[in-house]
Order: sequence, then C-alpha cells, then structure tokens
Amino acid sequence: MRLATNEFLPLKNVKIDDGFWGKYQKTAIEQIIPYQWRAINDLVPDAEPSHAIKNLRVAAGLEEGEFGGYVFQDSDVYKWLEAAAYRLTIAPDPELEKTADGVIELMEKAQEDDGYLMTYFQIKEPDKKFTNLLDCHELYCAGHMVEAAVAYREATGKDRLLNIALRFVALIESKIGPEEGKLHGYPGHPELELALMRLYAITGDERHKKLCEYMINARGTEPHFFDGELKRRKGINMWGGYQERVDKRYNQSHKPIREQTVAVGHSVRAGYLFTGAAALAAENGDESLKKAMEVLWNDITLKQMYITGGVGAQVHGEAFSFDYHLPNDSAYNETCAAIAMVFFARQMLRMEPSGRYADVMERLIYNATISGMSLDGRHFFYTNPLSMWEEATKKAGICGHIRSKRPGWFGCACCPPNLARMITSLGSYIYSVGGDTLYTHLYVGSEAEADLPCGKVRIAQKGNYPWDGKISLRLSGGRYALALRIPSWARGFKLKVNGLAARPEMKDGYAVIRREWHDDDSVTLDMPMPVEFIEANPLAREDNGRVALMRGPVVYCFESADNGDRLDALRVADFSSFAAERDDSLFEGAVVLRGKALRRLPWESGELYRPVGADAEEEAAVTAIPYAFWDNRDDTREMLVWIRK
Amino acid sequence: MRLATNEFLPLKNVKIDDGFWGKYQKTAIEQIIPYQWRAINDLVPDAEPSHAIKNLRVAAGLEEGEFGGYVFQDSDVYKWLEAAAYRLTIAPDPELEKTADGVIELMEKAQEDDGYLMTYFQIKEPDKKFTNLLDCHELYCAGHMVEAAVAYREATGKDRLLNIALRFVALIESKIGPEEGKLHGYPGHPELELALMRLYAITGDERHKKLCEYMINARGTEPHFFDGELKRRKGINMWGGYQERVDKRYNQSHKPIREQTVAVGHSVRAGYLFTGAAALAAENGDESLKKAMEVLWNDITLKQMYITGGVGAQVHGEAFSFDYHLPNDSAYNETCAAIAMVFFARQMLRMEPSGRYADVMERLIYNATISGMSLDGRHFFYTNPLSMWEEATKKAGICGHIRSKRPGWFGCACCPPNLARMITSLGSYIYSVGGDTLYTHLYVGSEAEADLPCGKVRIAQKGNYPWDGKISLRLSGGRYALALRIPSWARGFKLKVNGLAARPEMKDGYAVIRREWHDDDSVTLDMPMPVEFIEANPLAREDNGRVALMRGPVVYCFESADNGDRLDALRVADFSSFAAERDDSLFEGAVVLRGKALRRLPWESGELYRPVGADAEEEAAVTAIPYAFWDNRDDTREMLVWIRK
Repeated sequence: MRLATNEFLPLKNVKIDDGFWGKYQKTAIEQIIPYQWRAINDLVPDAEPSHAIKNLRVAAGLEEGEFGGYVFQDSDVYKWLEAAAYRLTIAPDPELEKTADGVIELMEKAQEDDGYLMTYFQIKEPDKKFTNLLDCHELYCAGHMVEAAVAYREATGKDRLLNIALRFVALIESKIGPEEGKLHGYPGHPELELALMRLYAITGDERHKKLCEYMINARGTEPHFFDGELKRRKGINMWGGYQERVDKRYNQSHKPIREQTVAVGHSVRAGYLFTGAAALAAENGDESLKKAMEVLWNDITLKQMYITGGVGAQVHGEAFSFDYHLPNDSAYNETCAAIAMVFFARQMLRMEPSGRYADVMERLIYNATISGMSLDGRHFFYTNPLSMWEEATKKAGICGHIRSKRPGWFGCACCPPNLARMITSLGSYIYSVGGDTLYTHLYVGSEAEADLPCGKVRIAQKGNYPWDGKISLRLSGGRYALALRIPSWARGFKLKVNGLAARPEMKDGYAVIRREWHDDDSVTLDMPMPVEFIEANPLAREDNGRVALMRGPVVYCFESADNGDRLDALRVADFSSFAAERDDSLFEGAVVLRGKALRRLPWESGELYRPVGADAEEEAAVTAIPYAFWDNRDDTREMLVWIRK
Repeated sequence: MRLATNEFLPLKNVKIDDGFWGKYQKTAIEQIIPYQWRAINDLVPDAEPSHAIKNLRVAAGLEEGEFGGYVFQDSDVYKWLEAAAYRLTIAPDPELEKTADGVIELMEKAQEDDGYLMTYFQIKEPDKKFTNLLDCHELYCAGHMVEAAVAYREATGKDRLLNIALRFVALIESKIGPEEGKLHGYPGHPELELALMRLYAITGDERHKKLCEYMINARGTEPHFFDGELKRRKGINMWGGYQERVDKRYNQSHKPIREQTVAVGHSVRAGYLFTGAAALAAENGDESLKKAMEVLWNDITLKQMYITGGVGAQVHGEAFSFDYHLPNDSAYNETCAAIAMVFFARQMLRMEPSGRYADVMERLIYNATISGMSLDGRHFFYTNPLSMWEEATKKAGICGHIRSKRPGWFGCACCPPNLARMITSLGSYIYSVGGDTLYTHLYVGSEAEADLPCGKVRIAQKGNYPWDGKISLRLSGGRYALALRIPSWARGFKLKVNGLAARPEMKDGYAVIRREWHDDDSVTLDMPMPVEFIEANPLAREDNGRVALMRGPVVYCFESADNGDRLDALRVADFSSFAAERDDSLFEGAVVLRGKALRRLPWESGELYRPVGADAEEEAAVTAIPYAFWDNRDDTREMLVWIRK
C-alpha cells in the first residue's frame, strides 16, 4: 500500500507571481542558466574551462580531444538541462528549448549502442566502466541525467532525452541487481535512487522502482559491496593511489539504511540518499523504511541543523559532525546539502502532511539555500557559516574553508546549478493534494490548478511573504478541504473566509477548512510577524548565552557593513528596542531589523586579560539583515547570526 | 656593550625545597628520566621502539642495523642527557652519572673524525649531510647536543661531552657562515642559536657567538637560503616528494628577524629562535635586536597568548594563528611551545628585570607547561586546549588533534623530555643578580648563594606558593638590594623586614629594598590571594561574555568529574559565592575554588530552537581545579576554563 498521501502538484499547474521568488526566478533565468550555458561551453573568459559539452562532443566522435574536468563533469550538463526544463515550464523560451534540444541530440550521438553514456569512461577508461561505483560517480551522473529527462519530458512533452535516460537505466539494470552475475552494488554518491523514483512516477515501470529498491536495501549490507569492489581493484582508487579500506560512514554505507539512527558522513550524499529512500517508502508503503527516515529526519532537524537550515557542520568530509555540535564560525553547511534537505522534506511531506516537514522546508528555502547565491546571481558560496570573521578565514586553518566573499561561478560547479533547479522548480513545492484536501505548504504568490475528488480546483495566492504574514487566497468551487500550514514560528493567526472569521480544524500544523466552496471564495490568513529572539537548546553549546533574530521564516544576521567591526563585542539587552523596517536597499520590499545593542568598549590599555571590572559598554544602534542577503556589499569583514545577550 | 644586566644564578647555587616544585622534581626524577631512559633503549613494552640509542650504536659501528625513528631522533638522547645533568645538580646519583657517561662514550665512538655526529645521515644518507637544513633538523640536533654538553659540564665538571659538542660545532662553523664557499644558511628548526649562546657563556669563545650571530642575522635575507637549497635539491624534499616552494612563514624566515613584528608560524621554532636572538642581543648590546624581540614578545604575550600562557593556537603548522584569535576548543598550544616561551622570558629578563617578563614566566610554569604532564608523570599532552568536549575530540575534525586523555609516553617524544629539563632546572629561574641587586623572580621554596659586589650572599625562601601568598626570606649580611617581584595579579602586598613594615622602592614590578643587611635578617612578603574573575580584552572575541577564574598565578578550570556534563550550560552570576578551599585529593596542599553557578536546564521538549522564554536555570554548586591538574581522574568528558557569566 502506498504511503504517499500527499502528491505535490506537477509543476505545469503552478505559476509563481511573487515579489520574493519572482525576483529569484528572474535571476536564475536571466543569470544562472545563461551563465552556466556559457560555462559548460568554455565560453567564460578567465575561467578554467569546464570541458563538459566538449567531452560530449569528443565522446560522440564529433571532435578530437581528451577528457577534461572532474569525473562527474557530465552532471553539469544534466543539471543545466533540468533547470532549463523548469525554466520552460515557467514561460516559453523557444531559443532555449532549441539549445537544449541540441544538447540532447549531442547526448544521443555520444550514447553507446548498449545505452552507456558517461564521457569520462568513454573517453578515458573504456575498460573500467562499472568497476568503481565507490568513487567514480557513474550512477550519480545517471541520476542527474534521469532527473533532467523527467523534467524535460514534463516541461516539453518531448521524449528524446527520456529515451536516452531509459536506455542508460536499462543498461544499469542489466549490470546491477540481486541476480547472480550482476554487481550487488549501489552508488558511492547517492542520486540515482531519487531519480529512479521520479522516473517511476512518469513511466510506472516497476523495474525502475525495483532498481531503486535494490540499491537502497543492498546499501551497507554484508558482504560489503565496496569492500569487494576495492579488493577487485586491488586497492587502487580512482586517483591511482592505494587505499586500504573504504570510509563507509562517509557515504552512509556503514550500516543498512534501516539501521541508521544518526546522520553521518558527507551531507549531500546523505540528503540525496534519504530523499530516495523516503520516496521509495512512500511508493511501497514501506513502514519500516518510513520509520527509519523519520528517525534520521529527526536526528538531522532536531540535533544537527543550524537555525538557518544549514546541515553538514564540518569541512572534514563535507560531513555532519555529531548531535548538537554546531560550531558557527567553521560551519561548512554546503549549499547543496541544504537543497538536498528540501528534497528530503518534500518526500517526508508526501507521506505525512505534517507542518514539521514544511516548517523545515520553509526554513531552508528562505535561509541556508539562497544564502549560497549573491543577489545579482553571479557569485556563489559553497559554505554557509553562521559567523564570519574575514581575518580568520584568511589566516586560521579551522576557518580556511570559509569564504568571506562569494567567488564567481567558475570556482565551483555543483551548488549554482543546484540552486537554479531548486529556484526554477519552486512552484512544485507550494501545494499538494491528499484525499479531498488541497494543502498549501508555502506562502508564495501563485496560481495553481489541482485535481481533487470533486474535480479540478483553482487556487490563487497573494501576499508579501516572507516580509508580511497576511495571505489572501481565492478558490474555485467544489466540496473539498483547504489545509493552510500554520508555521511553527506563528504564535497566532486569524483566518477568514469571505471576510468572516473561520474556525478551522487544526491538524498537524495545518488549519483545515472543509466545506462546499464557491467560485471566487476568498480566504485570508493573517499571521502576526513580530521580531523574535530565538535561543538554542542548551545542548547546542556553541549558542549558549546567545540569541538569534528571526521574523517569520527569515533568520537575520549582523554584518560589519551596518554595525562596524567586532560584532562579537555586541550584546542585545533590550529586546523590545528592535523593530522591523522596510529597507529596499538590498532587495525590494525587504525588511530589516533595527534596535539597540551594547558594545564592549575597547580597552585603553593593551592588556589581554584583567580582573573583571565595570564592563564598560556603550549603546550602539544596530541593524540586522536577512541572513540570506549577507555579503552583498563591498565591506564584508564580519557576519554574525548568534549575538550575545 | 652587553645588555645583560641580570644574570641568573647557576643551577648549583640554588637548591629547591618546595611543596609544589619539590613534588614535580621528584616526579621528573623518579618517573620521567628513568622512563625516558628505557624508552630510548627500546625497553618499554608495547611501545614503538625509539631506536635512539641503537642508532648511536650503529653509527659507532658497535652494531649492525638500519636507522630508526625520526630524522631528529638523536635529540631525544641529548634531551635525556640534559635532564640527567640537571638531576645531578639537584642531588648526586652515581648510577645515573655512570649511565650518562656511558652514553657520552658511545657518542664519542659514533662521532666521525671531522666532528660530524648525526646518526640519520651517518647511517642512511652519508652523502647528504648539510644539504637540507630546511627539513632535516641537523642543526637542531646539534643544538640539543650543545645544551646537554653545557648542562653536563656545569653539573659534573666533566669535559667529555663538551668536547664532542665543540668538535661538532667547529665542523658546523667550517660549513656555515658568511665566507665564500660556506653555506649562507641557518637551521630550519631553530635551537642551535640559543644553544650557542649557552656555549659561549661557558667557553667565552667568540666564534660560538659569531656563529649564532650569523645564523640569526642571515635568516630571512635575500637571496633566500632555503630557496637556493631547495633548488640545489631540485625541489626534492626529505620525504622524497617534489616541493615547489618553501613555507617561510612556517619557520620564521619570511623576513629578517629584525623586521618581524608579528609572531607567525610553528610556535616552538618561534620560541627557540626568539630565545636565541634575545640571548644574542643581551650579549652584544644589540639594541635593534632587543627592540625587535620586545615587539615580538609584546605581540605574543599581549595578543596571541592564552590566559594559561599557552601559545600556538592552531594545529595547522602547529602555529600561531593571528592577533586576538584564541579559540578555546581547538587550541593547539603545544607543551613545548609554552616551555620555549619560558626560555624566551628568561632571556628578556636578563636584559631588563621587568616584572612583565617574570609575570609571563610564572603564568607559564604554573599553567600551560605542566598541564602537559599527568600528576603521576606517566602521561603527556602535546596539546593544551582551554575547553575540551570529549565527543568533539573524537568526532569533529576541528578538534581532532585534541586528546581528552593524556596518552602514555610512547605516543610523543618531544614534550616529556622538554618538561623534564624545565622542571629539573627550575632552580635556575628563581633568582638573578643585576648590579648590586639580588632579584627574586619566582616564589619557590629554595636556598641560593649569589655573588654580589659586596661578596657572597645567601638567600633562603620559604612559603606555600602558589597556594598562599605569604613568603618568608632569610638573608645573609652585606650591602645590597633585594628586589622582590610583585606579581601583576597581586592587588596589594605587605612587606616586612625583621618584623617591621618596610617601604620598598617600586621599580618595574619589583619591590626593592636597598640596605645594609645582617646575617639572618628576615623579610616577609604577604600578598593576599583572593579568587579573581578575569575577563579578556574585547578583541579576543572567543572569550566575550565569559570569565576565567584565577587565584594567584594559578588558572582554574571546571571539569566534568566535579561538575557534571554540559559545562557550557553553566554561568557564574554570583562571583562572591566563590571561596578557596584546600583539597588534597589531587595534589597535596592544593587549593580548589568552590562556589555557585547557574545551569541552563535541559529542555523537556526536543526542540533545537525556540523563542527566548524565561531562561530556566538551576543553581549548581561548582568546583574549579587548577588547570594544570585537569585530566587526572578517570572521568574527563569535559573541561572548561572560560565560563559564561
């Protein structure tokens, strides 16, 4: 029995018209997608060539040359295609579609007769295919190809890319599985699992689900596939070095997935794996897998997630650290890991329309994901720390991975296209349907059409979220329930139907109104958005004695550009002094928080330590800006989320 | 003109009889020295063999075999000899002396005709001598040999080891210097510089000082010696790898030493280099070098030193981080670096008897040095953090270098013998003579004899330092000045001569009484030792909002063994609740601090973040123990110096 009670609306049926996300989508469409196109075609001046398109041309026999870039370079092309597909869903763009069709044609030419398509092995090591699933990202690339194919099919109705992907998947299925003679393996970097579930959703082909199921269930079992694989390779890894053993925690193969209770290892791998597993659990009605994903979800979100939604605290292995270890200045928090958590949240929400999943999804989309991109869409962070002291990033090893300024695209290839696909597909995260209920998970100005038991229903949403908690909706007629998420940050709300106070049923974080609706019925939801001072659980010791500022779903931070240096010398004593103010200087319509803090005065003497005296402090007017907007001014010497109180 | 105005008393003239240091000396004599002897002879069960003595036997042709251990393995033998020499100064030990003489005989046999003695090159790469001063520690080993030779000569009057050292130094002098055909080089790891100044002090041979002077002044000049050396080695480093460039900041050769204003790089190298340079400045009356050392001293002690005296904040390169960057949980603070700072302090004090040098020396000897050793003398820390969370040391990369328990000797070879030599030679740090003044820098129960212009003077000191600020001294007659350091921690003091209040002249942190003394005159100094709550300069941002507890020179810490887990959930609100109490359980006569703190209560709900409410706290009785004594009980899951206030 399927556990998916809550199907998200396909993208095509949702149109975003929103001050906040409209601007982000515009940036993704006008900046990221064209820029990435130039990047994968080696057309960005002063940037290291990507080789990605060239690799395909070489594999297709259209050009002579060597393989260039990372082993997983193809995935950049597929992520671009996926984002392009979403972009076509938002609005037609015949030129872009033609360009994409050209890439697809090239892929077709590069694909081998048996369905194989991964340029690294085709060009460089044709006899080593499927010999290093641990390191070589073969199945990871296949996963991105499948995701692009599904998105492109949904966007354009065209099958050509889908057929390429189906051929490659069929080849993989012939190589990997429980049968004798096949590899009893699974991806070193999970991704194909979640992609196969997306594929299954449109093909209905049981083999696609079965392959996913096999890879999820085989992972971490004994005899361990990666041990055997390493042995067959005589310990030689992809860099030509000798390797004694496999770091199984790094790729979440240290235990069968149902036995994992704490998220460990590389955080993007974890996020993709759990997304695939949750999607499988939903489809299969697999209660034990669902339970395992709940345990991991709870571990991540209740013990290992920064207030911004960032996960993967440490640079070492780009990995989770351990429960409640959330250092702020060295936080790795890869942008892609936050995006992976959005995917994971969505799959959990499919099984159980509970506000706790959508709350985290909201925390992620407004904070730890988009912080990875500058407002101009041209500079990107891999790492998203919660405190930044520029001098430490340059001079102290423990912060050596933190950047004080977002570098341009060419320095990093995975996070920007991942952001592009999340932002351009955001429409598909807003609504879902479960039984006779139309759920609204996110407050994003939009129009959508849903299939409900009573027939097609239209919903239109307007508001000025996340800056304002007033939402108005307009519905079409029929007997159905409308479930509006009441975010956990909201301490109260007023709900009106056609101007009259409504008394909804509260269920798992949703206010549900079940009734016979008439065309053009209006619903208004009003959630006050005061400035909130948030404290962390005492077990999260890095934040003891500190508060973070939030308003609605937005986490705020202090920057040196507004508040001068030595942000840690500030403490907030008078919470009531803080007020929200509209400030368009960074982002039209944005709200900043202004208030009073106390700043420890510099010592006149040069002592480093002295007995506690009257702790000389001066009052300072301070401004906090949305965390996601930090480092959009020249003068970014410091940034701080958790301020002393 | 010499700048050394303040000569420390030779070891032989000082006998320690002190509750605190007597116990440490006993431990060094009974535990470390015999243990190290067994270690360097490969007699410690379950320990990796040291090979150190065996290497000498192989080099001497007494045994067949390969070289074993680090390139600098010989230095372990020399450090053992040096500590053994100091031990002989404390009390005769004919068996130990015989053992030491045996080692010296072996060294004599191993020494080549031209004076060369370093077993690594003799056994392994005889044609590579003096080709890699950067990495190979050849001059470093020579330095430790010289230090041992000087100490052994002073302890026993025997010349044999001294002559071995003199022959090696003569060889080095023939290879290195400004003359054409010589290497214009200096040690990659400074040590020989300070050793040559010690050698010069007993030989008076100008060549020894000149060699030191050359190496100090040549360092960091262009054309850069290490660049040329690397080029001559075609970029091949001692590990056989290719190296593009030399990290000059790492070994303080990035600039001429007189142009360095900020301490950078490997902290032990820095400490040894600056010690040698200060000793040279003192001897040569080199004002510009003195000034440069003052600038570096001030940078280290006023901007880069932990409250314990620890220096070298980062594991990356075992190096200084940058001004005011003093993270507590990841602090490297190598024990040897703290010891090197004691050496540096002493040389600065020779030039200028100012309390600021002796204050730092005192901070170091009671805190960041001896914290490197367990009270049983059998376990040792390399790293001395100011906050330790065991789980983080095991699971979080940024704390991966921190140990929650001191490992046994065999895990580390440099810090234990360094501690042994500091502790056994501590007598020579207590007193010094400058002009007609007898300085008392440290309050350690002891008897000493000094040569003053008026003749030989005897001084006897008694007290219960560092637990009590009452010191009594007994003096022999003559016209001279007695200068007693008034530590910067003392907010006041009472000084009496023969029971009557004295009114000393205060000079640079010393209370000076100049008069005609009579035999058995008594002086008492009474410095109240309240519990002090110390705060850090606001620029040291890791400590904002926190206090450290001190009493006298002793820095305290909180341990989980006394205070339970979650030390960071504690804050001190009522300073007056803290009182000093004698507690013999860890160390006879020790003083612990007991008081009240508030502990954030765990949250009943499992949330990670929530709006600030009434911050539920409970009162907790807490105990702080001397920092140096942490991790002497089984249950060391956490330790914390800087507690929230």
